[in-house]
Amino acid sequence: MPREPVAGVQEPGSGVLEDATIAALGEHALIARIRRQLPPAPDWLIVDVGDDAAVYEPVRNRLEVITTDAVVDGVHVDRRFVPFEAIGHRAVAVNLSDLAAMGATPRLLTLSLALPDDLSVSEFDRLVDGAVALAQRAGARLVGGNITRSRGPLMVDVTAVGSVHRRRILRRSGARAGDYIFVSGLLGDARAGLALLSDPAGVDAERWPDVVARYLLPEPRLRLGQLLGRSRAATSALDLSDGLADGLARLTTDHGLGCEIDASALPISEGARAVWHSRGADAVAEAVAGGDDYELAFTVRPKEARRLNAVARAVDGLRLTRIGVVTRTPGCWLVDAERHRTPIGHGYEHFRR
Amino acid sequence: MPREPVAGVQEPGSGVLEDATIAALGEHALIARIRRQLPPAPDWLIVDVGDDAAVYEPVRNRLEVITTDAVVDGVHVDRRFVPFEAIGHRAVAVNLSDLAAMGATPRLLTLSLALPDDLSVSEFDRLVDGAVALAQRAGARLVGGNITRSRGPLMVDVTAVGSVHRRRILRRSGARAGDYIFVSGLLGDARAGLALLSDPAGVDAERWPDVVARYLLPEPRLRLGQLLGRSRAATSALDLSDGLADGLARLTTDHGLGCEIDASALPISEGARAVWHSRGADAVAEAVAGGDDYELAFTVRPKEARRLNAVARAVDGLRLTRIGVVTRTPGCWLVDAERHRTPIGHGYEHFRR
Repeated sequence: MPREPVAGVQEPGSGVLEDATIAALGEHALIARIRRQLPPAPDWLIVDVGDDAAVYEPVRNRLEVITTDAVVDGVHVDRRFVPFEAIGHRAVAVNLSDLAAMGATPRLLTLSLALPDDLSVSEFDRLVDGAVALAQRAGARLVGGNITRSRGPLMVDVTAVGSVHRRRILRRSGARAGDYIFVSGLLGDARAGLALLSDPAGVDAERWPDVVARYLLPEPRLRLGQLLGRSRAATSALDLSDGLADGLARLTTDHGLGCEIDASALPISEGARAVWHSRGADAVAEAVAGGDDYELAFTVRPKEARRLNAVARAVDGLRLTRIGVVTRTPGCWLVDAERHRTPIGHGYEHFRR
Repeated sequence: MPREPVAGVQEPGSGVLEDATIAALGEHALIARIRRQLPPAPDWLIVDVGDDAAVYEPVRNRLEVITTDAVVDGVHVDRRFVPFEAIGHRAVAVNLSDLAAMGATPRLLTLSLALPDDLSVSEFDRLVDGAVALAQRAGARLVGGNITRSRGPLMVDVTAVGSVHRRRILRRSGARAGDYIFVSGLLGDARAGLALLSDPAGVDAERWPDVVARYLLPEPRLRLGQLLGRSRAATSALDLSDGLADGLARLTTDHGLGCEIDASALPISEGARAVWHSRGADAVAEAVAGGDDYELAFTVRPKEARRLNAVARAVDGLRLTRIGVVTRTPGCWLVDAERHRTPIGHGYEHFRR
């Protein structure tokens, strides 16, 4: 359940008036309002609301994972500069990324489309192409869906189901003080690519095609998730759909822990550094804040580092970077080369160096 | 997958230009365009795209059913006259109705919300209340979801998963010439209730509260679906989300068959008759055309009628009405008391007496 940062977010139970608008509350508080309506989890529900996906047990010792996520034009993408193939790709990718973050193997998808009347058939076809191509490559079958007209924006809602063995589930909880923190791939490229594409001048997008592609075509880290679950190398994991700052909070401060992140260790591409430099922005701050990377962040007990080496060899080509450590003291800090410490907030609205 | 009738629907492959808008094509043609992109169904996919829901086999001899359906403000409901509890109820009901039409027992739901910023917290709470209350009553657990802002209408997208035994699946295919056609409950009340609520004068809604309630709070026929599957009384079944005319086409003409429907047998409430009479409309035509009833239509071999008696006793209170017969000759006909025959089209845009 990715969040959108909302100014003036209020925590649940803090006395918000019922006639306030939802915009004043934010997604976390709304989810909390739903959760308090739910009965206790039944026996067959292994992982409840609040992780990357839910895990349930349709048959003893056989687990299924389910997640749902939407891509909305004007909120998550902008069809003025995002090709329709990339919109379809993204709608599937963000859901497969949630399965990856649970260590699951994708099985099937449903696709629910709300389509504005002015959408052309070729735009529709390209959207479907992008969705089906990624699904097939990931071994997930589209089994059903729904199409409705939208009198508002284009919306693509996907639900994904996958399988996982009980002892191989990657949860968000499980990190302990002293665990190393790792991330896959590169951080902040997606945010830099979005900045390039959404720039009205728009000329720079052609200078950094790799950075732009990292925004347009996120790659769910399915093999990494499965290997981390299978090897039991990781104590916790999630996908960085909402950025590193948010992800660190979910893995540490949500569980009364903290973290120290080595600013110089963050895997930032040369391209992203150049983009931010050209705009007078701080590449590290952008990499910490930026969402949409869909990389995995995970924690590893130092004595299990050897298991991680085997994983690293098996995901050939995907970079795994140790960026910091889990601490006993709550709160996350970015530590630079001079050992200056800057607090890391819960999202880019709150994180500014 | 409910359809929306679109003027000038073109069948897939009929030479539509790629730069036509999707509004000119209609949902069936769009679904056909998706289906032709898909690889052959894998072994574990027991029922593919095109039925009320998909059925898959996560473990040998254990089947799961999945369906997804959306409720969009301004398309499926209108929040100016539909209370928020009823919007939440409907979003869950339409999905549970698809599970009912497969003979499945509900297990879990995911909820994906696109919310306009002006929605109040109490409206949000009432929407969730309506969804969760029906889910709990039906034994389905909400296990996850997604919340995003909408810069357009309120959208509620639900995916439902249930279980069914392999030999108890109710499919849309399976009817044979000579089978009796049955429907549950009443036909056309939902359409009459919508007509009352959406009337600008609006005074008549208070005269017929039962008719209005049938539109606002559709009841998924889960127990009937399960009993029909368990007893193997039915040769085919579906839910009437898109109206009787559409449902009959799905059960008969889609498979090269036809049907004759006895106009005098259609179960139309006194309330609905009075509503249509007050408006100078034909109650039978409205009952045949009207969607949103979420009753089940099913076919029964005459010699299995005894099995159906046992089902009828077990669904205490729910009326089951024999309305006609499946014929060998393609095309569906409405037959009145004077044996006049009127062709039944594929939806209310095409059906006018």
